[in-house]
Amino acid sequence: MRRSVKEVLSSKEAANDVVVAGWVRTRRDSKEFSFLEVNDGSCLGSLQVVADAGINGYEDIQAMTTGASIKAKGNLVPSPGEGQKWEMQATSLELVGTAAEDYPLQKKRHGPEFLREIAHLRPRTNLFGAVFRTRSRLAQAVHRFYGERDFVYVHTPIITANDCEGAGEMFGLTTPSDSLSEGESFFGKAAHLTVSGQLEGETFACALSNIYTFGPTFRAENSHTSRHAAEFWMIEPEMAFCNLEGDMDLAEEFVKELTLGILNGPADDFGLFSKFVDRDLEKRLRNIAECPFARISYTE
Amino acid sequence: MRRSVKEVLSSKEAANDVVVAGWVRTRRDSKEFSFLEVNDGSCLGSLQVVADAGINGYEDIQAMTTGASIKAKGNLVPSPGEGQKWEMQATSLELVGTAAEDYPLQKKRHGPEFLREIAHLRPRTNLFGAVFRTRSRLAQAVHRFYGERDFVYVHTPIITANDCEGAGEMFGLTTPSDSLSEGESFFGKAAHLTVSGQLEGETFACALSNIYTFGPTFRAENSHTSRHAAEFWMIEPEMAFCNLEGDMDLAEEFVKELTLGILNGPADDFGLFSKFVDRDLEKRLRNIAECPFARISYTE
Repeated sequence: MRRSVKEVLSSKEAANDVVVAGWVRTRRDSKEFSFLEVNDGSCLGSLQVVADAGINGYEDIQAMTTGASIKAKGNLVPSPGEGQKWEMQATSLELVGTAAEDYPLQKKRHGPEFLREIAHLRPRTNLFGAVFRTRSRLAQAVHRFYGERDFVYVHTPIITANDCEGAGEMFGLTTPSDSLSEGESFFGKAAHLTVSGQLEGETFACALSNIYTFGPTFRAENSHTSRHAAEFWMIEPEMAFCNLEGDMDLAEEFVKELTLGILNGPADDFGLFSKFVDRDLEKRLRNIAECPFARISYTE
Repeated sequence: MRRSVKEVLSSKEAANDVVVAGWVRTRRDSKEFSFLEVNDGSCLGSLQVVADAGINGYEDIQAMTTGASIKAKGNLVPSPGEGQKWEMQATSLELVGTAAEDYPLQKKRHGPEFLREIAHLRPRTNLFGAVFRTRSRLAQAVHRFYGERDFVYVHTPIITANDCEGAGEMFGLTTPSDSLSEGESFFGKAAHLTVSGQLEGETFACALSNIYTFGPTFRAENSHTSRHAAEFWMIEPEMAFCNLEGDMDLAEEFVKELTLGILNGPADDFGLFSKFVDRDLEKRLRNIAECPFARISYTE
């Protein structure tokens, strides 16, 4: 039974016959044994696997290069190395998949522009692994927040014939013409990608009282900057019988709870952001989580 | 502070100065008082509000017709009526919004074809209220299921230049031409709506081990039947270092847990389905939840 690196690293005690699998970050060989850093994306950290020459599977050790995928079985023992509580003394190794000789993620820091070009490998880096784990935790926290408050999660239509308050330029839809007869139109009218689920959300709130949407939204503004995404996920709560105060209360509670979730979440991912991305991050998030929001009127 | 009808109906004790708000399902008047059934969509049931002639707001009672929205304040007292534990003895009423004279949801059963024509009011019916509350509970249970297992929730792209195993016909995208220069193309290549997040999901699984997607998916098959939806939400888990057995184990566990959640969920919504939609529903769901799934090979 495979265990995640996250489970193994946070183990309370030594254990025998543990199986992990993941991707080799680095390998160092000596004559008698090899060290392999194995990461499986379950957390930021990697497990150090010590493989003595001669164990089962060691014959493939030269193919276990950075990026290769392997399984390792062995005993979890206290690590003499610094910064890690446990390491694995392997009893067998298995090469699952090799990495190309020009595998691009070598042990050095890569810039985001370079990583954008290899988007399929990007989640294997420390930074993007942490980004996507954090995004996932936030998304799940959104559902927990509204679920605990009995808000009904509504999937509003993505394909729509509506516009929403002129919120933005819309993408249009075309249909493969060979599936339609002459003059036939798929939806019977022009269809677009939604710029907001608000209209449908409001009709649901006018029946179920409190609802929220959480889905993708699209804007066709031809402005390719970091502030204009053609596609993004948006959360829209709608409450019947509420007023502006209640709306602001919910918004503040929501932002605070999600922020607090990040501050109290896994320290490794958060530590990476506050160490390498933004040294003021913790201070700023604490301020959001702990200070009452100032409220100003529109004309202010 | 407004309380939901769900909270009030499941109250443990009588209470004074309770405020509820919702939509009038029916009203019956006598000379001395009126009965109003108020539903706010938080649960299937409605709260019976007894309003004596002469209380604050009673002057608007004639406008509190089926579909009108009202607020009621009063005391929660044991109900002498059958099938309800509590009713409200109102101390004041407030008409929030009136309903049109030809408001289409009168007190009788409406067929789904009729309701499809008034989709914005449909969630106010017993059936569709229960459907959308149940769908929401299921969607939230999906995130709970994978969250508890440390699967990372990934938002895979909706707009894509990929096809997926020829899974289906794809919708194409057009861009408002006035935002583009002559000969310019928005994405630099033809773009479509995704038929599956599998490709991106697999690249994430090859970095984070266990991931899932849960988002909208599109098929442009020109087949307008109940089996072909142009747009639907799909869940796709992807696991690295797993095999077919592990995959089947997860699928079975997933279906069982969600099914059990429905069986153990609110009895009112479930009761409506098993009473009015499908009398064999509970039996079928119990079978799914409790019996091991048979597993057959592809060629069988």
